[in-house]
Amino acid sequence: MTQRQAGTARDIGRMEAFSDAVFAIGITLPIVEIEMPEVGPDGADLARALAQSWPSYLGYILSFFVIGVYWLRHHFAGKLYVQADHTFNLLNLVFLMAVCFVPFPTRVFVEHLGNTAQLPVASAFYLAALLLPAAAWTLKWIYGAQAGMIDHRLDPAYIRRLTTRYVATAGAYAAALLMASLDYRLGLAIGFVVTLIYLLPPPAPIFAEATRTPSV
Amino acid sequence: MTQRQAGTARDIGRMEAFSDAVFAIGITLPIVEIEMPEVGPDGADLARALAQSWPSYLGYILSFFVIGVYWLRHHFAGKLYVQADHTFNLLNLVFLMAVCFVPFPTRVFVEHLGNTAQLPVASAFYLAALLLPAAAWTLKWIYGAQAGMIDHRLDPAYIRRLTTRYVATAGAYAAALLMASLDYRLGLAIGFVVTLIYLLPPPAPIFAEATRTPSV
Amino acid sequence: MTQRQAGTARDIGRMEAFSDAVFAIGITLPIVEIEMPEVGPDGADLARALAQSWPSYLGYILSFFVIGVYWLRHHFAGKLYVQADHTFNLLNLVFLMAVCFVPFPTRVFVEHLGNTAQLPVASAFYLAALLLPAAAWTLKWIYGAQAGMIDHRLDPAYIRRLTTRYVATAGAYAAALLMASLDYRLGLAIGFVVTLIYLLPPPAPIFAEATRTPSV
Amino acid sequence: MTQRQAGTARDIGRMEAFSDAVFAIGITLPIVEIEMPEVGPDGADLARALAQSWPSYLGYILSFFVIGVYWLRHHFAGKLYVQADHTFNLLNLVFLMAVCFVPFPTRVFVEHLGNTAQLPVASAFYLAALLLPAAAWTLKWIYGAQAGMIDHRLDPAYIRRLTTRYVATAGAYAAALLMASLDYRLGLAIGFVVTLIYLLPPPAPIFAEATRTPSV
Repeated sequence: MTQRQAGTARDIGRMEAFSDAVFAIGITLPIVEIEMPEVGPDGADLARALAQSWPSYLGYILSFFVIGVYWLRHHFAGKLYVQADHTFNLLNLVFLMAVCFVPFPTRVFVEHLGNTAQLPVASAFYLAALLLPAAAWTLKWIYGAQAGMIDHRLDPAYIRRLTTRYVATAGAYAAALLMASLDYRLGLAIGFVVTLIYLLPPPAPIFAEATRTPSV
Repeated sequence: MTQRQAGTARDIGRMEAFSDAVFAIGITLPIVEIEMPEVGPDGADLARALAQSWPSYLGYILSFFVIGVYWLRHHFAGKLYVQADHTFNLLNLVFLMAVCFVPFPTRVFVEHLGNTAQLPVASAFYLAALLLPAAAWTLKWIYGAQAGMIDHRLDPAYIRRLTTRYVATAGAYAAALLMASLDYRLGLAIGFVVTLIYLLPPPAPIFAEATRTPSV
Repeated sequence: MTQRQAGTARDIGRMEAFSDAVFAIGITLPIVEIEMPEVGPDGADLARALAQSWPSYLGYILSFFVIGVYWLRHHFAGKLYVQADHTFNLLNLVFLMAVCFVPFPTRVFVEHLGNTAQLPVASAFYLAALLLPAAAWTLKWIYGAQAGMIDHRLDPAYIRRLTTRYVATAGAYAAALLMASLDYRLGLAIGFVVTLIYLLPPPAPIFAEATRTPSV
Repeated sequence: MTQRQAGTARDIGRMEAFSDAVFAIGITLPIVEIEMPEVGPDGADLARALAQSWPSYLGYILSFFVIGVYWLRHHFAGKLYVQADHTFNLLNLVFLMAVCFVPFPTRVFVEHLGNTAQLPVASAFYLAALLLPAAAWTLKWIYGAQAGMIDHRLDPAYIRRLTTRYVATAGAYAAALLMASLDYRLGLAIGFVVTLIYLLPPPAPIFAEATRTPSV
């Protein structure tokens, strides 16, 4: 029994370590996209060029922020899961693939911020990219809850609360994408509000009374 | 004895942690190959350009999928190995080198999907790149089995079953490459079927009766 | 109690592992910015081109040095913190974002070393980039000290000493940036001296007498 | 005492985990330097272009091999060190900086393999890049041995043997660099032989009789 649990814990551990490494690379890579400005020989030229590169900096910050908040969610959820099976790991890969894609649409979005003709398309592309990891996350959570990957000592009401939260988040990103087809500013507003909500700490885990005695 | 085993476990642990980091980088790097489209000032231009970049997205997804599934195999096999010697670590490096090369031929493959004159060459290059990690994996497994790297408590029939599986996989990729010289579509079909098989969970470890009492 | 503390330790552990991976990528990525020189067919041309690429090498070394020393600080501080909450993790993300940005201004700085018209602007940009992680680090430290993230057994005088040290560091970088608007050489001199100080080992942790008995 | 040792072990652990991540990125990044060939519409053009990119593939393989073998050495040495102080960690950073630089001179080397006028310069640049991590490694080892970072239970004769080995390796690379100024082929031959020696397993740790009883 002990050995089996050690094996299980190891499963989660390696999946988390691998996910952390993927997060770390996804969050850091956008720095290579910031181009050295080509400027004239004057100092004022350099100052102007560096200032005009603000979309690059904003893209880096936005990507870091979105991926970083997903890392926090992943880190938090790692405390709720107790094991991982093959399907769960596959769903985690799909989620990581969606998260690491985010910097590209972010770049498309920030590079077209000054162009009102292209901004609606760039915004929709960005919102679609925000929807993907939210949807993959929700799928992984729902599978994990149904397949017994989650600590069985957690209060079922607490798990349902998180499920509602995640489904609502994915739904809100989908709504933001739809709204963006009417007015991209409305879509972006919804998308940013939903993203900002995850800056708040997640609800602390609640354990069911009857099973409070740890079985580990 | 305890100390020695702790040392051994550490060996496997660091090799696994290093491998996980290499996997994580290999799987994530292809995102930097997705180029920002250069477009006219119109929103429709941007939408068209983003849509026409589909080979980039497909390349990212294919690479993520192939490397991710190899990570799952590596993760699974990590539970079967109990120690690692110098040669085993060298073979693991060869395997990682082959896995991290995959994104380049994948890119060559997807970029020429629309060109029937070049697709046969691109497909063969891609299938060769799929054969390399499969062959290195099999080599590493066979060495590991013969040099006592694998948990001796595992049922020998179970180990033989995995050996057969891995040899057959490498053989099937080699067959796909050969077939591709006749008809690249046939080669690709074989290659994709073999790859998809690894989406299924691996056979659960079976321990031999006589040695069931854990020695750890 | 034991379980709770194990959970807490795990929190710090994953945050540290993730931070280490981000550090590792941030420190290594600048190597891809070193361009292959395009040269004539002569060997002397290649030697000259490789020698003329010295700003690239210097940029790599400076980035590695600055990020590496921050890793040492992070590694050292990891021994003082005993837990991490949501806000603390967010502040850590801001700090990592600032650290990984350093290679870009470093490149801007070294590429303009030979141009006295542009060097003042490049120097100010570089000093601003050195200020950012120092400020984020100090913010994270102050929050951590006030929110009880730091080992309560540490001598309060020792914690105050570190707080003073970190505030002074951020202040010195801010002073360097201000000085650079008068004379960039003065600003750079201050910035480099402050950075070099961190090559010295940090003060060894001092535990308060009354709480010397470990509670863990 | 136990707590202190746990703290020490953690020191080595985080330094090793960080080093492994740096190794993993340094070894994997060269893949992004392999350029997609620009070719005509014909399949034969693509085949020719892929074949003509052999220096890229060779550079990737050489870098992977050299960095991978250093990882094996680092992994092996990790079992001999029992603690790390500030200076030791700084020397480790210098070593990692030298290791991660290797792919650039490797690329310069392989890209000029077909040009006998430039090959002597490219070879000397490559050999200098092989000398750097060997020298940094030796420096770190000597410091570690003198500052008590190495397990005191190891047989002093065994430690001296490794010291000799590492000094000889750095010396041989220096000799290869000097020889290359006479004849680059001779220099390369020495450099490759020294590198290949590390494919052999390192000598197994020998513990001194008197201190065999573990103090941990």
